[in-house]
Amino acid sequence: MFMLQVGIIGAGRIGKLHADHIQHMCNVRVRAISDVCIAGLDTWASEMGIPVVTSDYHDVLHDPEIQAVFICSPTSTHAAIIQEAAEAGKHIFCEKPVSFSVETTEQALAAVKTAGVKMQVGFNRRFDHNFKKARDVVQAGQIGAPHLLRITSRDPEPPSAEYISKSGGLFMDMTIHDFDMARYVMQSEVVEVYAQGANLIDPKIGELNDIDTAVINLRFANGALGIIENSRKAVYGYDQRLEAFGSAGCVTTNNDRASTAIVATADGVQMDKPLYFFLERYTQAYIQEVEDFVRAVLHDGPIVCDANDGLQAERIARAAKESLLSGRPVKLEHGPATMQHQ
Amino acid sequence: MFMLQVGIIGAGRIGKLHADHIQHMCNVRVRAISDVCIAGLDTWASEMGIPVVTSDYHDVLHDPEIQAVFICSPTSTHAAIIQEAAEAGKHIFCEKPVSFSVETTEQALAAVKTAGVKMQVGFNRRFDHNFKKARDVVQAGQIGAPHLLRITSRDPEPPSAEYISKSGGLFMDMTIHDFDMARYVMQSEVVEVYAQGANLIDPKIGELNDIDTAVINLRFANGALGIIENSRKAVYGYDQRLEAFGSAGCVTTNNDRASTAIVATADGVQMDKPLYFFLERYTQAYIQEVEDFVRAVLHDGPIVCDANDGLQAERIARAAKESLLSGRPVKLEHGPATMQHQ
Amino acid sequence: MFMLQVGIIGAGRIGKLHADHIQHMCNVRVRAISDVCIAGLDTWASEMGIPVVTSDYHDVLHDPEIQAVFICSPTSTHAAIIQEAAEAGKHIFCEKPVSFSVETTEQALAAVKTAGVKMQVGFNRRFDHNFKKARDVVQAGQIGAPHLLRITSRDPEPPSAEYISKSGGLFMDMTIHDFDMARYVMQSEVVEVYAQGANLIDPKIGELNDIDTAVINLRFANGALGIIENSRKAVYGYDQRLEAFGSAGCVTTNNDRASTAIVATADGVQMDKPLYFFLERYTQAYIQEVEDFVRAVLHDGPIVCDANDGLQAERIARAAKESLLSGRPVKLEHGPATMQHQ
Amino acid sequence: MFMLQVGIIGAGRIGKLHADHIQHMCNVRVRAISDVCIAGLDTWASEMGIPVVTSDYHDVLHDPEIQAVFICSPTSTHAAIIQEAAEAGKHIFCEKPVSFSVETTEQALAAVKTAGVKMQVGFNRRFDHNFKKARDVVQAGQIGAPHLLRITSRDPEPPSAEYISKSGGLFMDMTIHDFDMARYVMQSEVVEVYAQGANLIDPKIGELNDIDTAVINLRFANGALGIIENSRKAVYGYDQRLEAFGSAGCVTTNNDRASTAIVATADGVQMDKPLYFFLERYTQAYIQEVEDFVRAVLHDGPIVCDANDGLQAERIARAAKESLLSGRPVKLEHGPATMQHQ
Repeated sequence: MFMLQVGIIGAGRIGKLHADHIQHMCNVRVRAISDVCIAGLDTWASEMGIPVVTSDYHDVLHDPEIQAVFICSPTSTHAAIIQEAAEAGKHIFCEKPVSFSVETTEQALAAVKTAGVKMQVGFNRRFDHNFKKARDVVQAGQIGAPHLLRITSRDPEPPSAEYISKSGGLFMDMTIHDFDMARYVMQSEVVEVYAQGANLIDPKIGELNDIDTAVINLRFANGALGIIENSRKAVYGYDQRLEAFGSAGCVTTNNDRASTAIVATADGVQMDKPLYFFLERYTQAYIQEVEDFVRAVLHDGPIVCDANDGLQAERIARAAKESLLSGRPVKLEHGPATMQHQ
Repeated sequence: MFMLQVGIIGAGRIGKLHADHIQHMCNVRVRAISDVCIAGLDTWASEMGIPVVTSDYHDVLHDPEIQAVFICSPTSTHAAIIQEAAEAGKHIFCEKPVSFSVETTEQALAAVKTAGVKMQVGFNRRFDHNFKKARDVVQAGQIGAPHLLRITSRDPEPPSAEYISKSGGLFMDMTIHDFDMARYVMQSEVVEVYAQGANLIDPKIGELNDIDTAVINLRFANGALGIIENSRKAVYGYDQRLEAFGSAGCVTTNNDRASTAIVATADGVQMDKPLYFFLERYTQAYIQEVEDFVRAVLHDGPIVCDANDGLQAERIARAAKESLLSGRPVKLEHGPATMQHQ
Repeated sequence: MFMLQVGIIGAGRIGKLHADHIQHMCNVRVRAISDVCIAGLDTWASEMGIPVVTSDYHDVLHDPEIQAVFICSPTSTHAAIIQEAAEAGKHIFCEKPVSFSVETTEQALAAVKTAGVKMQVGFNRRFDHNFKKARDVVQAGQIGAPHLLRITSRDPEPPSAEYISKSGGLFMDMTIHDFDMARYVMQSEVVEVYAQGANLIDPKIGELNDIDTAVINLRFANGALGIIENSRKAVYGYDQRLEAFGSAGCVTTNNDRASTAIVATADGVQMDKPLYFFLERYTQAYIQEVEDFVRAVLHDGPIVCDANDGLQAERIARAAKESLLSGRPVKLEHGPATMQHQ
Repeated sequence: MFMLQVGIIGAGRIGKLHADHIQHMCNVRVRAISDVCIAGLDTWASEMGIPVVTSDYHDVLHDPEIQAVFICSPTSTHAAIIQEAAEAGKHIFCEKPVSFSVETTEQALAAVKTAGVKMQVGFNRRFDHNFKKARDVVQAGQIGAPHLLRITSRDPEPPSAEYISKSGGLFMDMTIHDFDMARYVMQSEVVEVYAQGANLIDPKIGELNDIDTAVINLRFANGALGIIENSRKAVYGYDQRLEAFGSAGCVTTNNDRASTAIVATADGVQMDKPLYFFLERYTQAYIQEVEDFVRAVLHDGPIVCDANDGLQAERIARAAKESLLSGRPVKLEHGPATMQHQ
């Protein structure tokens, strides 16, 4: 079996998570990991069986044994590293978003295209069993022509003020997953966005000029309407649901729970709460997205969520912010060929 | 036990439904029923034990034995009959909407206020066991401060073109129930509306300048956001669900089904479809709303959905239409005292 | 419309319940009610619109206006009244069980047969929407050949010691409904019974030589196996479920709840408890069984649960008690024609 | 981190499954694997990174690098290998059942005790998230004193005739998992068994003197009653559910499904079927049981299902068969100390 060697740029939580998953796979190994702060990283890498640790990501990009890189560094660095990685001929897996600027993202993607390397964006939810099933049901025509989409996406608790200040705002940081999910399930481009937001959970978030509660309306090229509901704090756990409704039916997904047990007592009838957060809910999805990327690289196969998917989600996020500020719906232009057949 | 005698004006489907329910109650009887078309009505009334049948509703209004009237005639006649009934000193139960014009409704309600009679508007869904429970959960503070509301409201099939042409449009005919439900559950006034609509089900509906698919965004005085999803055709049955989310939790209601049976075979695992339509789903709610009205009249008690509730729902429907036409959010003004304590 | 007049013998809880339901029906009226203790009954009957009240049930049996009687008196009196009612030519609705002795029941049923009157036994659960659906699924062949049946039947709290002392024991009082349900759903006779019991809830029940917890195994003529689980005390409410499994699938019914609402908070995710007890759970079933009896009498139609059904359930209850005492399975003999086509 | 080296005896489906899981763990490796038939095993072992392949399990037992062995060979060989492994000082993980004879199992366990090695029996379901939750709920006292237990355990299709002929019969092959589950959840020994069986699925199973459908009643030392329902063929998939009921409540577990999606169309409302069979349903449980064994060996910790658990389940299976043949309940004797505190 052919073995792929990869490098990981950025050894934060998500970089380490990918590394851990990769080291348990049979056809791929992490050859190098880089981070600007490498204190303690040696020990961890040694336990994980990763031979090379460096504070300079160029070491990763220029290692001839490495065929693909995982870009898990802060968003502000993504675009530059993508361009360099593309020029170095490495296939690219990049965490979302590519950048906070559509123009910057477009430049980075142009470099990817020129280099002819593959690029996958880390929209892990496309690999979740529930959302994948919803997409398959829609694609199979079981709900007929899509008319309405609803995505409920709520975190169990808000991130730190520091994180929020660098996050690009709710739409770019959190809703971007939902924008991608909307395109993935509906298989049609978003042509109009209207966004409402509120600061209901923590005044500190408002002080950072961000919102913590939002409703975003989407209008799709196929005529359907969509809604995304966001909250930074659902006290009962990570709430990740979706419903697609059409001329022939409706598909509804619910949350995963730790068990199916139902406990009935004199006090009431209780079931488990939803799994706590993304690490619990999307464990299999994180593994699956990497397996899929590895498969695509090794066998020159298609990428499930590619550079254009990253770009489109960012464009919608950008339009949502514009709508929030203006209080009016915002249109998105689409050339005839922006949506690839999937 | 004191016996209330009522008259019913309008012997269409809903008028006959109320009559049937009333005749099965122990403290109220239908004394008279009127309709412009009384062909065959005598026989039916005789079987139901209703002594008086007339083609002139004034006979009902002037019958001294009658203390309350149910106005079930076409919407265009409501306001005038309300005024006459109020002047005649009759308590009033009126089907929704009171009128298609906020001004007309306000005039009618002024007459009610002047006469000092009670008036209930037929928002039967307030009496549904599922929605009532959601409201109680919110009112008890179990979800904390409300942040988000979602109402899913889909009919199993569109009405006839003739009905639609006189319906006042989707918002005034169908969504009006959801507008009332939003106020009922959130216990806060709607201060802004944004509406999107589409004609996806039947082109004939579009030819009548109406829509069959809609998403309506609400902003409440308490800062919460709300969404209503409408479709005129859910092929799997009447879809009536609601979710209210807040700082301390979330309450979600599902559809009622004919049975709890789950059938697992080699082909799949199947449960019953939602109950077909409003007559099936809201049977108990229709009975309950009448019982409540009768109780309020007999014991001079509070009305669960009163004249002002009817007016506010119409105002929101009107604003929604304005938003649909303009493509922009529309604000609603509220004086300090429009929302009554409930 | 032809009007049926009935008499009710025994004005306890169930007699009054039937009277109340009948007075709300359009084709039947209670003409007379009898009870050995008529203190206060006059007032109640007057409010209900029942013209005749008597302490002697013979007055009911000999009233020429009355075509059918509801026997709701204590079990010890059922058999004698059935015989007299049959001789008087009255159709009979009798609460379960007919008697505590199979021989006594057989004598009473012989009188019914001789007189050619109709007789229905009050197995109200046959008319429950969930159990009816399970039966229909089995009858339609959706689960193929039945292999296994499970009935879970638990009360929310035990009856009084006084009630238990006259009840005939758990099998004759409580499980008898489940024995009938087993035959109804499986559409095959029980040919062997094995019963286990325990006194786990209240030692007073054991002092009365009764049990409060039981598992009863059934073997059916069609080769299938069945299980009934009983408890006199489920602290979370009335637990009434059933599952039938066969060569082509499985049908499972769950409890009814007051609403479909699910409330998620930091403490957990909660749904409503099952409806409290039989009056709540089986309201519609009680109405339906009477409507069905009235229909059968008025239109000379078939009886859904007839005298033989009452007899067979008692025979199984008797065998279960024998098994409990002997600690061994007990066989039931069946002639070729005991199970009627239904 | 200390690394455990293990050997696997028997390279059938389950032996290979354990090897695969072990090779993905970070603190344990498979050093050797043996099978009487090693055709093709070399290639597979090489891909898995297993250095030693042998046709003689003694090579595994005498390898000084190996500290623990997984016995995955046919049941008829278990007891002898256990004795030899114990004498060789190896810790033992043995698939169920230890043997088809209680005496043989007792001898093997005596050798384990003498040698002072740890032994775990492969009751993987104890590690299933649903059953583990049910056990935890019972142990935490949430249902109070246990009164009733029900286990529904149905395979999606029967094994081959050849497998059945060597399986030891339904109780020893299939129900043995349920017997162990009953003890695990109820935390009390089984003191009486009554078993009923039938051959309803495939006459070939009857020709092999086995049954394919069964109901087994259990009576526990704590006074509770239990029921196990078995079928060799549930056409809708692997059906693995449990309910424990007690003085303070009830815990019910349901099947796992591939997704939470619900699809509503004009044809009905459908959810996913249960996961197909044990490899799908118990993937995580298989991993967890090995991780737990490794932890117990490395850190000298307790074994979740030990040699005595294996013995007790076999004793119940034996008693069930005796009951099936005699048609009567069979008692099991228990000394005061057979149930270990867990």
